Amino acid sequence: MPYGYVNSMKTRPGHRDEVAAILTGGADGLRAAGCRLYVVGLDAADDVTIWVSEVWESKDHHDASLRLPETRAAITRAMPLLTGEFSSRETIIAGGLGVTAG
Amino acid sequence: MPYGYVNSMKTRPGHRDEVAAILTGGADGLRAAGCRLYVVGLDAADDVTIWVSEVWESKDHHDASLRLPETRAAITRAMPLLTGEFSSRETIIAGGLGVTAG
Repeated sequence: MPYGYVNSMKTRPGHRDEVAAILTGGADGLRAAGCRLYVVGLDAADDVTIWVSEVWESKDHHDASLRLPETRAAITRAMPLLTGEFSSRETIIAGGLGVTAG
Repeated sequence: MPYGYVNSMKTRPGHRDEVAAILTGGADGLRAAGCRLYVVGLDAADDVTIWVSEVWESKDHHDASLRLPETRAAITRAMPLLTGEFSSRETIIAGGLGVTAG
């Protein structure tokens, strides 16, 4: 079953669009690393929170992606723009629209 | 910009797979109603929580879908299996992999 990861982060005021651009800018590399979906959403209730909904071939693919040079470079660019407040949930993908459970 | 909705629900013990099947069973109708993505994930940390990450053409499409007969029927079937504990966040989709911001 594919691995899901639903997570949020808070950016420093005025930097949310910049962080969102860093996150969305790596889509091609994500696909090559075994990522099926990577949805970046800006919280409608404030101007600092970002929600990311991810689907990966497996948890191993996700974990390995964090060690890629391009991922590490993106994290290095984004970290100074974040407050350090994160949330995350791991899921087993059951299916739906735009994603398959198999 | 597309509308995102990240939400969770808790099921009564032993009923999570049944609720997940109700949620994933409506995929074809969702597409016709303006839904682009509807990802159903089972929380890996317990056996009662479900996370749903949705992307819609607009908030109006999402709101209208809640009034469709098939949606109302699915809600009627699922409600007795839920505890009533929900969370939800509305987002503006910035992009990523598998979804476009336009």
